[in-house]
Amino acid sequence: MSTAAAPFNREALEQVLKRRFFFAPAFEIYGGVSGLYDYGPPGCALQANIIDTWRKHFILEEDMLEVDCTLLTPHEVLKTSGHVDKFADWMCKDLKTGEIFRADHLVEEVLEARLKGDKAARGIAVEEEEEDADKKKRKKKVKEIKNVKLDDEVVKEYENILAQIDGYSGPQLGELITKYEINNPATNGKLEPPVEFNLMFETAIGPSGQSKGYLRPETAQGQFLNFSKLLDFNNEKMPFASASIGKSFRNEIAPRGGLLRVREFLMAEIEHFIDPDNKSHSRFSEVEHVKLRFLPKEVQESGSTQLIEKTVGEAVKTGLVDNETLGYFIARIYLFLTKIGVDSERLRFRQHMSNEMAHYAADCWDAELQTSYGWIECVGCADRSAYDLSVHSARTNEKLVVRQALPEPVTVEKLEIEISKKKFGPKFRKDAGTIEKWLLARTECELEDLGKELKENGKIVVQVDSLPEKTELDTDLIKIEKVTRTEHIREFTPNVIEPSFGIGRILYSIFEHQFWTRPGDADRGVLSLPPLVAPTKVLLVPLSSTAELQPMVKKVSSYLRKQQVPFKVDDSSASIGKRYARNDELGTPFGITIDFESIKDDSVTLRERDSTKQVRGSFEDIIKAIKEITYNGVSWAEGTSHLTPFESQSNDA
Amino acid sequence: MSTAAAPFNREALEQVLKRRFFFAPAFEIYGGVSGLYDYGPPGCALQANIIDTWRKHFILEEDMLEVDCTLLTPHEVLKTSGHVDKFADWMCKDLKTGEIFRADHLVEEVLEARLKGDKAARGIAVEEEEEDADKKKRKKKVKEIKNVKLDDEVVKEYENILAQIDGYSGPQLGELITKYEINNPATNGKLEPPVEFNLMFETAIGPSGQSKGYLRPETAQGQFLNFSKLLDFNNEKMPFASASIGKSFRNEIAPRGGLLRVREFLMAEIEHFIDPDNKSHSRFSEVEHVKLRFLPKEVQESGSTQLIEKTVGEAVKTGLVDNETLGYFIARIYLFLTKIGVDSERLRFRQHMSNEMAHYAADCWDAELQTSYGWIECVGCADRSAYDLSVHSARTNEKLVVRQALPEPVTVEKLEIEISKKKFGPKFRKDAGTIEKWLLARTECELEDLGKELKENGKIVVQVDSLPEKTELDTDLIKIEKVTRTEHIREFTPNVIEPSFGIGRILYSIFEHQFWTRPGDADRGVLSLPPLVAPTKVLLVPLSSTAELQPMVKKVSSYLRKQQVPFKVDDSSASIGKRYARNDELGTPFGITIDFESIKDDSVTLRERDSTKQVRGSFEDIIKAIKEITYNGVSWAEGTSHLTPFESQSNDA
Repeated sequence: MSTAAAPFNREALEQVLKRRFFFAPAFEIYGGVSGLYDYGPPGCALQANIIDTWRKHFILEEDMLEVDCTLLTPHEVLKTSGHVDKFADWMCKDLKTGEIFRADHLVEEVLEARLKGDKAARGIAVEEEEEDADKKKRKKKVKEIKNVKLDDEVVKEYENILAQIDGYSGPQLGELITKYEINNPATNGKLEPPVEFNLMFETAIGPSGQSKGYLRPETAQGQFLNFSKLLDFNNEKMPFASASIGKSFRNEIAPRGGLLRVREFLMAEIEHFIDPDNKSHSRFSEVEHVKLRFLPKEVQESGSTQLIEKTVGEAVKTGLVDNETLGYFIARIYLFLTKIGVDSERLRFRQHMSNEMAHYAADCWDAELQTSYGWIECVGCADRSAYDLSVHSARTNEKLVVRQALPEPVTVEKLEIEISKKKFGPKFRKDAGTIEKWLLARTECELEDLGKELKENGKIVVQVDSLPEKTELDTDLIKIEKVTRTEHIREFTPNVIEPSFGIGRILYSIFEHQFWTRPGDADRGVLSLPPLVAPTKVLLVPLSSTAELQPMVKKVSSYLRKQQVPFKVDDSSASIGKRYARNDELGTPFGITIDFESIKDDSVTLRERDSTKQVRGSFEDIIKAIKEITYNGVSWAEGTSHLTPFESQSNDA
Repeated sequence: MSTAAAPFNREALEQVLKRRFFFAPAFEIYGGVSGLYDYGPPGCALQANIIDTWRKHFILEEDMLEVDCTLLTPHEVLKTSGHVDKFADWMCKDLKTGEIFRADHLVEEVLEARLKGDKAARGIAVEEEEEDADKKKRKKKVKEIKNVKLDDEVVKEYENILAQIDGYSGPQLGELITKYEINNPATNGKLEPPVEFNLMFETAIGPSGQSKGYLRPETAQGQFLNFSKLLDFNNEKMPFASASIGKSFRNEIAPRGGLLRVREFLMAEIEHFIDPDNKSHSRFSEVEHVKLRFLPKEVQESGSTQLIEKTVGEAVKTGLVDNETLGYFIARIYLFLTKIGVDSERLRFRQHMSNEMAHYAADCWDAELQTSYGWIECVGCADRSAYDLSVHSARTNEKLVVRQALPEPVTVEKLEIEISKKKFGPKFRKDAGTIEKWLLARTECELEDLGKELKENGKIVVQVDSLPEKTELDTDLIKIEKVTRTEHIREFTPNVIEPSFGIGRILYSIFEHQFWTRPGDADRGVLSLPPLVAPTKVLLVPLSSTAELQPMVKKVSSYLRKQQVPFKVDDSSASIGKRYARNDELGTPFGITIDFESIKDDSVTLRERDSTKQVRGSFEDIIKAIKEITYNGVSWAEGTSHLTPFESQSNDA
C-alpha cells in the first residue's frame, strides 16, 4: 500500500513527532528525566481516541465492569501479590564512577561485542542487517569492538549463554560476570556483584512515615481486591470481566527506546473471571474464522521464529491455544489493533517460554508489533489461573470465591473443624473471632495435617497471621473430623484471563506502521492514521485570507462543532499546499477548502489525505460523508460516491 | 422539584452508594487506607461521562490544547514552583500515644468545645441547627464537652481567634496551643510544638536513590513547562488555553468526609494564557446574561455570608469580577456544573480572602457546592498572574514569553549588556555559554545594579546558578550601557487564568443534589442523574423470564449496541417493580419493557425514572427519543410527544 512508497526512515518520523508535538521528554527545560514523556495536543487526542475505541470495543461491547482504583497501593497488598519480592531486575554498580548497569543487558552486550570481534579477527564479514534489529534500540555501552580471536570452545559457550540470556538469576549473572571478566566497558573498572533492584516506586502514606506504599506496577490488583463487590454487582453471574484504564509505574534501571520503555505509562487491563472447569466462550463462534500468525513456544525453543498461520478456531481445536476464552480474547485483540491502525503484516502472537513467564502466569501470549526496534510486546494475554485471588484470600481470610447452586446435590466426605464456642470466647476474648476465622479458612489439605497433629498430641500450636504470638488449641476447644455432607452449592475460586494493553507502545508502533513520505519528496511526511483515531478529523482552509470568506468559515465551523467532528481552522497566509502538508504530518485525514464559489452555493471541496483525491459537494453532504467514513467504517469510494470528483486547480493539493 | 419530596437523608444515600458500588474504600479487605477510594462500575461510568462532557464543553468548544503530562515530577520543578516550601500543613504530635493532629483543626475544635461548654454553663441553649454545617463532617476529636464558664474576656478572645483560624502560621498556632493549654483531647497529654508537614508524596526516580521526586500536587506545572511548545503548536497565536485531565495527590494529615478530602484525586485543569494588558474575551457576550450568586471577599470580611445575585456582565462592569476572561470562565463553569446535575440553588461563587489565597494566586473565585457537609470548594478559578512562567524561566534561563509584532515600531532607551566574545571563550571555556546565557537573562532592574557595580569597581562578581563558584567579570569582558533601540517586537510573559476542577468532589455533590426517596417509601431511593451523565441510559427488562421473549431482548439489545446507547439487561426473576427500583438507585433514567405484545408488533414501553411516566411505541422510535433526550438536551415532553401515553398494568412501575 501507500506505506511502501519509500523505505521507512525513523529519523524523519522522529522529527515529525517532535515538530508536531505528539510527545516530548517531560521537564525538558529542566534537562528532562529519562523514561518520562509528556503528550502534546495531537498525541493526547490520539491517545484519547484509542482509549475511547478500546472502551467501546471491549467494555461496552462485552458489558464489562469498569473500575477505577487508586495508584497508591499499601505495602501489604503488593507483598501478598509477590511484587515486593519478585518485581525486580538485577543491577551492577561501578563503585568508582557510580555508574549502574542492568546486569543481563551488560552481559549480553559484552559477549555480543566479543563475538563480533572474534568474527572480524577470523576474517568473517559481519552483515549489519544480520543483527537482531531489537538490539539497535539500545544506547550501546560497548563503544569499541576489539578484533580478538576467541577459542572455538569459548565461542560456543558465549553463544549458548546468549540463547538463554532471559533465563538467568542474579547470582548466575554474577558468576558469568566473574568467570568472563566482564567489567565497565567504558573504563574497564571492576563491578560489584549484581544486587536486586525492585522496580516499584516507593512512598510513605500519611504523616507518620510508617505506612509504606508503592505506585502500582499494574492495574490488576485493584480489580482482584474488589472481586466480591464486582460479583455482587453482576448479580452473582459468571463468567464476567472487569476492566481498568489508568497509569502504572515501573522504575526502570536504564530506560531506552523512547515510548517503548518508560517509567510511567497508561495501561488498559481486563480481568476476565471464569470457571476453571469450563473455559468455553459463548461468543467464540463470532471470531473463530479470524486468521492469526502464531509463534508457539516449541518453535522458539527449537531456535526458530517461523510463524504459523491459522484461524483461531483451528488454533483452539488443535490445542495450540489452550481454550476458547483465551482464543476469543486473542482474536478480539487482533481486531482491535488492526482497527486503530496496526499493520496486520507486522503483528504476531508469541507464546511465552516457561523461563520468561511472569511469576503469576500459567500461560501467556503476547501480541507483538514489529518496529524499527524489533518485535515489541504491546499486549499481554495471560492466564493468571487462580493465583491472585487465592493469595489475597489466604492473606486476608476473606473468601474470594463463587458459590453456585449445583444442578443436583452431591454427597461428599470431608474434614471439618468443630469449634467449641462456649469455651472459645472466655479463653481468647477479643482474639476469639480472629482465631475462628483463621481456622475456618484452612484448606482440606491443611486440615489433614492439623487433624493428625491434634490426634497425636492432643493439641495443636498454630501461628494466626495477625496475632503476635502462637495459639495453642486442645481437643477441648476444637475437633477435626471426617463428616459426610450433602452439598447443594459448589464453591470455587475463578481463574483469570488477563488481556493487558500498553497504550504508549501501541501508539508508537502505529506511528511507525503508518508513516511514509510522498514519492519523490522525502520532506513531505504523511501519517496515515485511521480517521477513527486521528487527533483531528478535518482541516478547514479558506482559499485566501480575505475577509470575504470569513462568514463561510464561521458557518462551516459552527456546523462541524454542532456535529461534534473535531476540526481545526488554518486561515494563515501559508499556501494551501503548505497548510495541507502540515496536516498530513498531523495525520488529519480530511481537508475542506472554502473558495469563492462556496459563498454562492455552499459548496466546498473535500480532500483525502493519503490519495490527495478531491470531491465537491454542499458542506452538509461533505460533512455527512466524513462522519460516515470516520465513525461507521464506510470506505472513501462508497462514502463519496454521490459527490462530484474535483480536479485540483493548484499542483500542491 | 422532586428532590424536595422528603428531607435529605445522608445515611440513606450512603447506603445506596455502597450497595450499588458507586465507590468504596480502597483495599477494604486489607482494612483500607484512609483517604483512598475505588470507583465501582457505576461510579466509574459516571466519572467517565462527566469527563467526556467536560472535554466537549471546554476543550472541543474552545479549541483548547490538551496535554497529558507525567505524575512523577522531579524535586527541582516543585522547588521552583514553591510547593516544596509552601505546600504544607502544620501538625502536632503526642509523643506518648503517637497520635498526630492537624494543628489548625485541633485549635478550632477545642476552642469551639470550650465556648459550647461556656454557653451551657451560662444556661444558654445551643441549637444544633445553629452550628456551621461544615463542622459536622469531621470526626470529632473532642468527644466530651465540659460545662465550664469562661471569663467574658476569654470568650471574646476565643471568638476572635476562630474568625481568623485559616490565617495563622505554624508558630502562631504553637503559641495559641501553649497559651490556652490545648492538649490531646482524649488523654489530656502534652503535645509537641507544631511542625510543618509537606503534603506531597515523595519518591526516588531511578536506581541510584539520589534523584528525589514527588507525585504532582496539581496538573498545572506540566502545562507551564510545555508553554513554549504549546505556543509554537498554536502558530504563536494568543490568547490560548491548554488543558489536562489526570490524577493529582495530596498526602493529607487526617483525611475525612469521604470523597471530599482524599489523598488521590482526579483533576481537570485549564491554563488560559492571556496578555496581561488585555484581559477581554472574544466570546464574553455569549455569557454576559448568565445570572450568578456571588460571595465577595468584602462581605465575608464583614462577617456575613449574604450572597449577591448579578449577571456576570454586571459583575465585570462593576468590577466585582476583575476582568472579562475571569468572568467568562466563571459563567462557563456555572453552565458546565448545572448541565451535569448540580442544583443551581446550591451553587455559589466565593472570592478568596487575602489570607487564604494559594501562594501563587493573584485573585481567586471558588465555585462552592452546598452539601450536608457544608459549602464545599469544587472548582477554583484563579488568576495566577505571571508567577509560574516567571519562576520557571528564571530558574532554567529558558525564555517563556510571547513575542508579538508591534503595529508600529517604538523607540526605547534601555540597558544592554555587551559581551566580548573573543575574550569570553578562551577565559571561561566550557562555562562561557552558561555565563553568557545567564547574563542575557537579567532583567532591566538587575542590569541597573550590575551596571552601577561595574562602574564603581571595574568588575562584578556574580553567582551563576549552575556553576559551583562565583564568576568575576571586568570591563574587559563585558560592558553595560544605555542604548536607544527601535523595537518592532513586544515581548511579554503571559498571565494565566486557571479554572481547576476537583472531579470527585463535584461527583459527590451531585449525588447529594440528586438523591431523594419516593414519597411515602423511605426505602425507595432515586438518583435523578441527568441522562447525559447517568452511568447506564437504559434498563431493558423482559416482562417475564420465559424463553419466548428472548429473541426480542436480543433484537433490541443489538440495536441499542449499534446505536451506542449504554444499557443493561435485567432478565432476573425479580418483579418488574423491584428491577426498576434497583435501577432508580443506579440513576438509570430510562426503562424499556418488553412484553408479549412486543413480539407481535415490535412495540415496547418506555418508562421515565423520576416521574415513572410511561409511553409506548416501536423500539426504534423509543430509542430515537432516548437519544434525543440524552444527548441533544430535548425535554421528555417534547421527545416523546409523538409516542402513545401508556397506563401501567402493575402498581409498581
